[in-house]
Amino acid sequence: MTRENDKRPEWIPKDATEGFATRIMSGVEQEEVKQAPSSKRKQRKLADYVSGVRNNDRTILAKGITLIESNAPKHIHSAQRLLNELLPHTGHSLRIGITGVPGAGKSTFIEALGSYLCEQGLQVAVLAVDPSSSVTGGSILGDKTRMESLSRNPRAFIRPSPSAGTLGGVTRKTRETMLLCEAAGYDVILIETIGVGQSEIAVRSMVDMFVLLVLTGAGDDLQGMKKGVMELADLLIVNKADGDNKRMAEVARNEYEQILHYLRPATDAWQTKALICSALHHNHIDTVWEQMKQFEHITKQSGVFEKRRQLQTKEWVYTMIKERLEADFFNHPFVKEKMPSIEQAVIEGKQPVTQAVRELFDEYEK
Amino acid sequence: MTRENDKRPEWIPKDATEGFATRIMSGVEQEEVKQAPSSKRKQRKLADYVSGVRNNDRTILAKGITLIESNAPKHIHSAQRLLNELLPHTGHSLRIGITGVPGAGKSTFIEALGSYLCEQGLQVAVLAVDPSSSVTGGSILGDKTRMESLSRNPRAFIRPSPSAGTLGGVTRKTRETMLLCEAAGYDVILIETIGVGQSEIAVRSMVDMFVLLVLTGAGDDLQGMKKGVMELADLLIVNKADGDNKRMAEVARNEYEQILHYLRPATDAWQTKALICSALHHNHIDTVWEQMKQFEHITKQSGVFEKRRQLQTKEWVYTMIKERLEADFFNHPFVKEKMPSIEQAVIEGKQPVTQAVRELFDEYEK
Repeated sequence: MTRENDKRPEWIPKDATEGFATRIMSGVEQEEVKQAPSSKRKQRKLADYVSGVRNNDRTILAKGITLIESNAPKHIHSAQRLLNELLPHTGHSLRIGITGVPGAGKSTFIEALGSYLCEQGLQVAVLAVDPSSSVTGGSILGDKTRMESLSRNPRAFIRPSPSAGTLGGVTRKTRETMLLCEAAGYDVILIETIGVGQSEIAVRSMVDMFVLLVLTGAGDDLQGMKKGVMELADLLIVNKADGDNKRMAEVARNEYEQILHYLRPATDAWQTKALICSALHHNHIDTVWEQMKQFEHITKQSGVFEKRRQLQTKEWVYTMIKERLEADFFNHPFVKEKMPSIEQAVIEGKQPVTQAVRELFDEYEK
Repeated sequence: MTRENDKRPEWIPKDATEGFATRIMSGVEQEEVKQAPSSKRKQRKLADYVSGVRNNDRTILAKGITLIESNAPKHIHSAQRLLNELLPHTGHSLRIGITGVPGAGKSTFIEALGSYLCEQGLQVAVLAVDPSSSVTGGSILGDKTRMESLSRNPRAFIRPSPSAGTLGGVTRKTRETMLLCEAAGYDVILIETIGVGQSEIAVRSMVDMFVLLVLTGAGDDLQGMKKGVMELADLLIVNKADGDNKRMAEVARNEYEQILHYLRPATDAWQTKALICSALHHNHIDTVWEQMKQFEHITKQSGVFEKRRQLQTKEWVYTMIKERLEADFFNHPFVKEKMPSIEQAVIEGKQPVTQAVRELFDEYEK
């Protein structure tokens, strides 16, 4: 593989990439009007993509991801053909989800962990799920300066959250991007979530291991934490264990250990652990990685690892189906128009719920 | 109202009730072939139902519930017309959900609390959500002897869980039964759940207050408890605080208080509390009721009570829509036939998920 010598930055400006991909895809589109050579040339183009991704050609990888992120039907079609070819080469990474309370230092932690893994000779891809980015205009991992050192590391590949709207859309794109990165040979995939809405559950549903970053002051933190997030975690890390804060972090770690004792572990055969680290000073990052490897080892031995992956894939099918069904229904013109007044009527007790729903379906099914 | 003198047992054998209701409804059905008198007579029949329920005529109430529990389209139609008439008279009760770890003594607790409330001059309806009953053949609250004393109390009305299949169906029926009971003047509705699958979440979505019954040995209990259930609770009650077990129960209560401190409360403006009681000896049942009244008072003052009810009604609409969409899709012959092989293909990495889903929809939408 040519990765070691590959000095191209993984940060191809989004516009440029998209423009390029669009040109490529327009090419494909134009070919479709022609006859015989079309499918041959398309086949060759697909083969180029496949080998490009497999050789971790970052330009091709980035273009492949752009295809996956596109909502244009012809891009979706091409992306699926590409994925189909790459599927046999996926699944070999360790997929780790990372969330945290605001201010816990997620970017610093990912930068520290990612750099450490690169030093160990591993290749790391960093992705994100942030359904809020289309609303706020920003996006996590979108700010290069946040992970300056990691983003310059030739062994690391960072891709910000796709800026498309729904959680379902963002989730699908991140999942498929993850598969592309695996086919490109990345050993560890770190998926950050900003913790908006249901995004933790979405990330938990696509990773092998889920990490929750917290700060000192366990009780107070937890009060502000979203319900049930702690029960998703396989590893709880008290960050910023440095300077005067170190002793406090140790206390918090003990408190969390106690709480964890009362909660049912997120993963069978693995007792969720609480650790401390200082991402800023790169302290205890090795311990964190040790625990992650330990987790992988134990869950693979017990079969829990493989079982979870199978279940995740199966559930992904069902989730996509449900999202599609709901999108079709709620975007139906009659439903869209009627929904507000029906909501009002049932809330005010003017119409029974069952009757209201029946009314909507009578029209929808016409 | 005639409730005080109403000595009729609320336990009308299910077959008899259903037979009677069927006869009534068959009558309605036959009328539909006739012309003018039909709608008049139907109107009169509806009016009889409405006034019967409003006067807490238990025979009529039971028949109304049987209508609601029927899956026959004409019964559903009649049930909805009845509900429509009764809606303005609903909403005045305190709705309390009750769950617990196996062996925590839910029936004994409901019997003790229900009897106490009757002594206070209140009228109590006891319902249940148990989607497993159709599988196991049994049903919670189905065994009269379990609440012998309460079932003989003229102020109490006990209705077992409908034995229909899906959680969605059972939930809809229990919700509508609750509304009928409210229209009949019941002051407190206790809804028991056996804690199978998602039934706790279903019950939480229809009640004002949610109570979790536990036993001594907090840590061990919680390990066996379903994830997140404790975070749904507004009141945690350590039952069987009697005899030698009393001191242990006090210890457990303290442990639970500590854990609760770390969890985000289920209800805004209310800190979840841990209590002890002995349902068997009717000890501390008054304290439990005090806390329930306190909960009602505080949440009503802060507006949380009303806001939650509105949200629950709204979410009920969305839940019903989603269930209907999924039932239609997954029962489609092509989908039903294809689903197993598609699941297999995606799990084995032979087909991308997005492509598999697209294939299903292409056929479904034809």
